[in-house]
Amino acid sequence: MPGNTFGQLFRVTTFGESHGGCVGCVVDGCPPGIDITEEEIQKELDRRKPGQSAITSPRKEEDEVKILSGYFAGKTTGTPILMLAYNKDMRPEDYDHLKDVFRPSHADYTYERKYGYRDFRGSGRASARETLARVAAGAIAKKYLKQKLGIEILSFVSQVGEIRAIGDIREIGEITMEEIESNIVRCPDQETAKKMIELIEKMRDSGDSIGGVITGVIKNVPAGLGEPVFDKLHADLGKAMLSINAVKGFEIGSGFAGVIKPGSEHNDQFVIDGGKIKTKTNNAGGVLGGISNGEIIYFKVAFKSVSTIKKKQNTVNRKLEEVELQASGRHDPCVLPRAVPIVDAMSAIVIMDHYLRHKAQNL
Amino acid sequence: MPGNTFGQLFRVTTFGESHGGCVGCVVDGCPPGIDITEEEIQKELDRRKPGQSAITSPRKEEDEVKILSGYFAGKTTGTPILMLAYNKDMRPEDYDHLKDVFRPSHADYTYERKYGYRDFRGSGRASARETLARVAAGAIAKKYLKQKLGIEILSFVSQVGEIRAIGDIREIGEITMEEIESNIVRCPDQETAKKMIELIEKMRDSGDSIGGVITGVIKNVPAGLGEPVFDKLHADLGKAMLSINAVKGFEIGSGFAGVIKPGSEHNDQFVIDGGKIKTKTNNAGGVLGGISNGEIIYFKVAFKSVSTIKKKQNTVNRKLEEVELQASGRHDPCVLPRAVPIVDAMSAIVIMDHYLRHKAQNL
Amino acid sequence: MPGNTFGQLFRVTTFGESHGGCVGCVVDGCPPGIDITEEEIQKELDRRKPGQSAITSPRKEEDEVKILSGYFAGKTTGTPILMLAYNKDMRPEDYDHLKDVFRPSHADYTYERKYGYRDFRGSGRASARETLARVAAGAIAKKYLKQKLGIEILSFVSQVGEIRAIGDIREIGEITMEEIESNIVRCPDQETAKKMIELIEKMRDSGDSIGGVITGVIKNVPAGLGEPVFDKLHADLGKAMLSINAVKGFEIGSGFAGVIKPGSEHNDQFVIDGGKIKTKTNNAGGVLGGISNGEIIYFKVAFKSVSTIKKKQNTVNRKLEEVELQASGRHDPCVLPRAVPIVDAMSAIVIMDHYLRHKAQNL
Amino acid sequence: MPGNTFGQLFRVTTFGESHGGCVGCVVDGCPPGIDITEEEIQKELDRRKPGQSAITSPRKEEDEVKILSGYFAGKTTGTPILMLAYNKDMRPEDYDHLKDVFRPSHADYTYERKYGYRDFRGSGRASARETLARVAAGAIAKKYLKQKLGIEILSFVSQVGEIRAIGDIREIGEITMEEIESNIVRCPDQETAKKMIELIEKMRDSGDSIGGVITGVIKNVPAGLGEPVFDKLHADLGKAMLSINAVKGFEIGSGFAGVIKPGSEHNDQFVIDGGKIKTKTNNAGGVLGGISNGEIIYFKVAFKSVSTIKKKQNTVNRKLEEVELQASGRHDPCVLPRAVPIVDAMSAIVIMDHYLRHKAQNL
Repeated sequence: MPGNTFGQLFRVTTFGESHGGCVGCVVDGCPPGIDITEEEIQKELDRRKPGQSAITSPRKEEDEVKILSGYFAGKTTGTPILMLAYNKDMRPEDYDHLKDVFRPSHADYTYERKYGYRDFRGSGRASARETLARVAAGAIAKKYLKQKLGIEILSFVSQVGEIRAIGDIREIGEITMEEIESNIVRCPDQETAKKMIELIEKMRDSGDSIGGVITGVIKNVPAGLGEPVFDKLHADLGKAMLSINAVKGFEIGSGFAGVIKPGSEHNDQFVIDGGKIKTKTNNAGGVLGGISNGEIIYFKVAFKSVSTIKKKQNTVNRKLEEVELQASGRHDPCVLPRAVPIVDAMSAIVIMDHYLRHKAQNL
Repeated sequence: MPGNTFGQLFRVTTFGESHGGCVGCVVDGCPPGIDITEEEIQKELDRRKPGQSAITSPRKEEDEVKILSGYFAGKTTGTPILMLAYNKDMRPEDYDHLKDVFRPSHADYTYERKYGYRDFRGSGRASARETLARVAAGAIAKKYLKQKLGIEILSFVSQVGEIRAIGDIREIGEITMEEIESNIVRCPDQETAKKMIELIEKMRDSGDSIGGVITGVIKNVPAGLGEPVFDKLHADLGKAMLSINAVKGFEIGSGFAGVIKPGSEHNDQFVIDGGKIKTKTNNAGGVLGGISNGEIIYFKVAFKSVSTIKKKQNTVNRKLEEVELQASGRHDPCVLPRAVPIVDAMSAIVIMDHYLRHKAQNL
Repeated sequence: MPGNTFGQLFRVTTFGESHGGCVGCVVDGCPPGIDITEEEIQKELDRRKPGQSAITSPRKEEDEVKILSGYFAGKTTGTPILMLAYNKDMRPEDYDHLKDVFRPSHADYTYERKYGYRDFRGSGRASARETLARVAAGAIAKKYLKQKLGIEILSFVSQVGEIRAIGDIREIGEITMEEIESNIVRCPDQETAKKMIELIEKMRDSGDSIGGVITGVIKNVPAGLGEPVFDKLHADLGKAMLSINAVKGFEIGSGFAGVIKPGSEHNDQFVIDGGKIKTKTNNAGGVLGGISNGEIIYFKVAFKSVSTIKKKQNTVNRKLEEVELQASGRHDPCVLPRAVPIVDAMSAIVIMDHYLRHKAQNL
Repeated sequence: MPGNTFGQLFRVTTFGESHGGCVGCVVDGCPPGIDITEEEIQKELDRRKPGQSAITSPRKEEDEVKILSGYFAGKTTGTPILMLAYNKDMRPEDYDHLKDVFRPSHADYTYERKYGYRDFRGSGRASARETLARVAAGAIAKKYLKQKLGIEILSFVSQVGEIRAIGDIREIGEITMEEIESNIVRCPDQETAKKMIELIEKMRDSGDSIGGVITGVIKNVPAGLGEPVFDKLHADLGKAMLSINAVKGFEIGSGFAGVIKPGSEHNDQFVIDGGKIKTKTNNAGGVLGGISNGEIIYFKVAFKSVSTIKKKQNTVNRKLEEVELQASGRHDPCVLPRAVPIVDAMSAIVIMDHYLRHKAQNL
């Protein structure tokens, strides 16, 4: 099976290059009767689009989403939903100088090695523009999960460079979308947010870029989601996040830091709380044996710094010559603020898919 | 699709519980004509089996693998390969006391919530015994990849508790299987290995357990493997690793630590080396845009401490009562040494699958 | 994805050769809590096994089924179910003379061309012995469908050679399993059954073989099953049946004969019957637009005559020589009577799979 | 997995309703570097479009195909190919009278039962307009198969109502695309074609419709394609054809008629012909044990008469009332002539997919 589809039952196939006709997706398997509007989907896309603040790329892309099938009288029909955003104001000639050069840490070289041939305009299929399709698909999943199961999904920037937001898991459950959206870096800790913005501006002004970490949170997931032994819930969340451009790491619950805790300390004791089974701590991150246990699901996603920088770099071209390269485009100094809705979307798609899978076999 | 199958073209379906009839797998899509013996596969399984050293569980499980189909005259035939190890010396009555209790940080509770019903004998399907099937399947993949493409796969324990092996990526390429196998903890750095063993023995003696990190290394992977945008090579490696029991995190290349590096520092400069395109550094970990670039692939996998400990713990039972629990079984104080061949196996399965997928479309 | 798996959510993967260690299947995605015994499954297998009557192969194969995983305390657990029958009394040396020869209309030649190599003992993977695994998996599906939805599945032999059972669709709904099982050819029309048996005996005695048609019937299927546009219910039924050894054709409802009817005659008029929507006729065969409409589903499956005959035949060998061949084995003169439970099983698997798929998205 | 995707490696996902924004498909997994133009694809679509002759629907639909992704500088790039045709001149108000009525033998009723809700404009997703997407995808496959392997695919109308073209398999190999395209009914036997056209005109004039049979032919398929035991080549061809609107039956080679032949007569004797292994007869239809044997593949597909007729019919509505219905639209009196390119397309998609699958494992 080719690699442009995610999910088994809520099945999202994305298509499109940054400078082809459009970017979008087909969502197959979506439950019928979800009432959602283009405006609601657009709202999510607007959180991802460039040009939204001083610390994102100043490019003007409207990313206006259109629903072209699987939708009737304001509702999903159960048939494949085609959503896309046409590419506008494309200036492919801007990319002629990249025709033969392989930009460092970009996918130019590997696409060429894989396919023997590549669309060199603006990273082609490897462009992060592809992620708008994920956000559109995720918007539908998010709506369904909220309405049907009360599930809430929100992510925030918890680290930029060496600047980390402080906080523990108890607080994670309290964070609101409003807090996240209250500043342009999407970190709910306002003091830290200021420092993050300063750092990003510094990187931007010096023509450099910086990475960071996004923390994902999913609340009110019922116990029982996840398909061992391979499609464990956190394994699919991990794959979903690792498939996002620039992601280099994923950890759930206590993650890498937790490995130093002895079992006696790491184990989450079960307790009875209000007549229900809960855990006293949540080192697991809401997943036991690959199946949700009803606690808050939380995880971290590491994003490397953006590969496109204005500083001069050494690299090679297709003729096997070493050359100098200086980017002239208008790129993000830090991808994190715009990646928050993408992490949300992938969370929603994974939970949606696993809910349908669980429903099929067990409900 | 249910969750017990991994891979698209080299397709491994595992089955079996720790106390049912057997544990094993069906491998479908395996190329015909691979000459491999039960002994070669057994050798890999022996690296995983309990009782192999003073720091693993003293349980005696022979884990003797049998090939029952898809195999003729010493070779794979291209039809489904059934491999299994029968369960022996099962004492299900040992588990009667676990019938109604949910052990902390085990999957008892979530399996019950998912399926409404569970095989409570020795963790049932959630038992790490399942991983022997992965090792068997991986052994075939490893053989093929080595013979056909010269690919080498090896993993080692790089951290136990707070004890970390030192080393950089240049050295990672030099590590040999002999070094890894030269001590019982499977850490190629002998000094560190000693300290790790001491720590594990200390945890064992105090009835506790400890976690750690395994570093995976894959050498000689040709450029071109990986299927963007969702089935990126590192996304599938990540999922493969996260699906292993007790894994809480995965990172490739510079990972979480790398997010603090500005782009100008993190980018891997392309250079011409011996007439070929290489990268000067390898922060990427051998994968660009989800496709292998021909450099060494390396990643880290975080394992939490084993949930089963001898210390007394508080928990709850099916009647919603809070109870005390004390494990009496013979369990691993640290899962890392035995997990090394599992990481190897999952690496082999992922690379094999992606090689066949790449071959189908592009070769 | 390799070809040994059928179904998306009720997922059956078969393995095994006629003279390897065993033949069986893994069923993944099966709902938990189905109470079924090995004896119930064995009963279905006994309808398929050779040596059951004077008109089947006199080979003695017990085909004793074992459930080795996914089963606990008399119920399915929701985890993968391994079922297999060990191969006994194998005499692989009997097949040495077939090592180099390609038997006419057998798969010897094509397996060799595909895989470059083949298990030549008793047709290897191409042996109809593989179908016992389907019958085992189908038995579980049948039980679930009957208990949960009241669905009844039964097939019968409606044609052997030129001898056809007469009857129309009204009568099809009245046929019982008892009638079908009341004679060794499994044709509920007793007069025709006698003639069919005579014809088969004649073919057997002359060392020849004969084909025929099985009619499949599925009753009480709720409206709504089927996944357009590609996984239409009858398309999946068709594929299921065409995947059975020796099948050359499939038709649903009015089928090939129906093409001569004008629309005004072929259309099934909707009527209100007992307050419910029914159709006056059922040329559709219970499926409209690929989705079940609540009427009886019925279809026909064409089986060619068995390729193994005792008569001398001309063929070629691996050295590209033309040679004579005379079979000495003990084969079926007509596969139809033993194929009835296989058609039942494939029907059950298809309906089960589509019920779970429909449930996931729409229920 | 939802049902709108066909193929494992050459993966076609279609979307669109007759009166939504557009109809089209995403083709994922297509080999890179195929040079094909929109014009070549359009040419295939033109064979399918309405209004092309006196015996098809007089509706004017241009069905102008656009390639919007996965395509660069005249070639496929290996990334997902989006192709679509926008819906024009839609008059959804024309369908208001169908909002509550269930047309006989249409999918109105079953879509409503499945999804609880339906797009009632012009059959919605169940419209045969969906098949234009298949033809577009098939055009790419056809080009690749022809260029790379010399495979030729052609289908023709062999029966309309009771009028049958005469001919045997030897002749089938001689038929050319020119002969097929030389008349509007697409039957290469000119005498028969005339009679067929007369019959269709008669049905048209009386406000009725008629069915028929299309014979599919695939030449120069190399031996080895097909994935037993479930994804046998003819099983996938069967499913592909049965998924086309109005198809009720599929048979390969000798099919239903062949069941009366004893094995001694039906078996295809192997012979040496020009140093190569060939078969003397071809009752198998080019497939043995589910794998192509290098002979011509041929099969028949039964199409029922079109459900939409101008004659008055009795039916029911959503309020469970019995009502009269008279169609006013402009529909095909016989779908066969326009279905020929659809059968071609599905053949191409199946062979393409199986070639890539075979290549992955065995080449």
